[in-house]
Amino acid sequence: MAQEIERKFLVINDDWRSRATAKPYRQGYIATAKIGQSVRVRIAGDTGYLTVKGPAQGLSRVEFEYVIPVNDAQEMLETLCLSPLIEKIRYRLPIDNVVWEIDEFTGENAGLIVAEVELASEDQPFEKPSWLGKEVSGEARYYNASLVKKPYSRWPTP
Amino acid sequence: MAQEIERKFLVINDDWRSRATAKPYRQGYIATAKIGQSVRVRIAGDTGYLTVKGPAQGLSRVEFEYVIPVNDAQEMLETLCLSPLIEKIRYRLPIDNVVWEIDEFTGENAGLIVAEVELASEDQPFEKPSWLGKEVSGEARYYNASLVKKPYSRWPTP
Repeated sequence: MAQEIERKFLVINDDWRSRATAKPYRQGYIATAKIGQSVRVRIAGDTGYLTVKGPAQGLSRVEFEYVIPVNDAQEMLETLCLSPLIEKIRYRLPIDNVVWEIDEFTGENAGLIVAEVELASEDQPFEKPSWLGKEVSGEARYYNASLVKKPYSRWPTP
Repeated sequence: MAQEIERKFLVINDDWRSRATAKPYRQGYIATAKIGQSVRVRIAGDTGYLTVKGPAQGLSRVEFEYVIPVNDAQEMLETLCLSPLIEKIRYRLPIDNVVWEIDEFTGENAGLIVAEVELASEDQPFEKPSWLGKEVSGEARYYNASLVKKPYSRWPTP
């Protein structure tokens, strides 16, 4: 078990892109009754994961993650997960004492780019890069599990 | 992944008991939206498991089961699973070419005893022991996931 403490932001330009490393992610969710509690199946690069997350409490969330055979993950994504699946490129970019993870969504969520940073404590200070936009931590519509039910392409235009 | 093919029966007497081996089971379910699809956390003896099951199709069901740290299982049972938890003693009893698993429930499901046999194919023949009662394969109220929502002690008397 791990306590996951994350902050999430929109991304306002491409200044992060040239220095980041990229890996394709494909993930889905086993139908759960409550948003905020989720069972996620993910293929990141060549590795399969099964992850159980508890409900958010402030910026924190308990997370239990296990590596599983990629063929199992593939089959669960195709047969047991809600559609559409979430497809995105995850970029990693270390800056100072933190690692930024920038998710560029494709498919029905194309156009959405968010940056996340995982912290050791809720009050850990970190530098905000110039390409960072509005903070959306805790906004449920940006949860990946929410993007299955209401993809970005179907959000009302602001 | 495994295809699980099971038949389930009520148990009408104790003639199985003297020759069976016993292990305590404690398990719960991460809230899932549909009955028939489940994410189960189990502690069997000293071992933790996380299991994803697909919906039943006839007597068959896909099942993905992973051993996880027992402390993770303990914490998920206490914090993320629906209550009440399912507590039972599982007895194992090999007879001829099959192994019977007899679940004697405790707690809110006390009084319920069911016997299950796992088969290699839906039409595999097997001997029916004398202590076997009515078949309840596919009856949703006997699913362990259903017994959380409506425990045996709250069933209407027949």
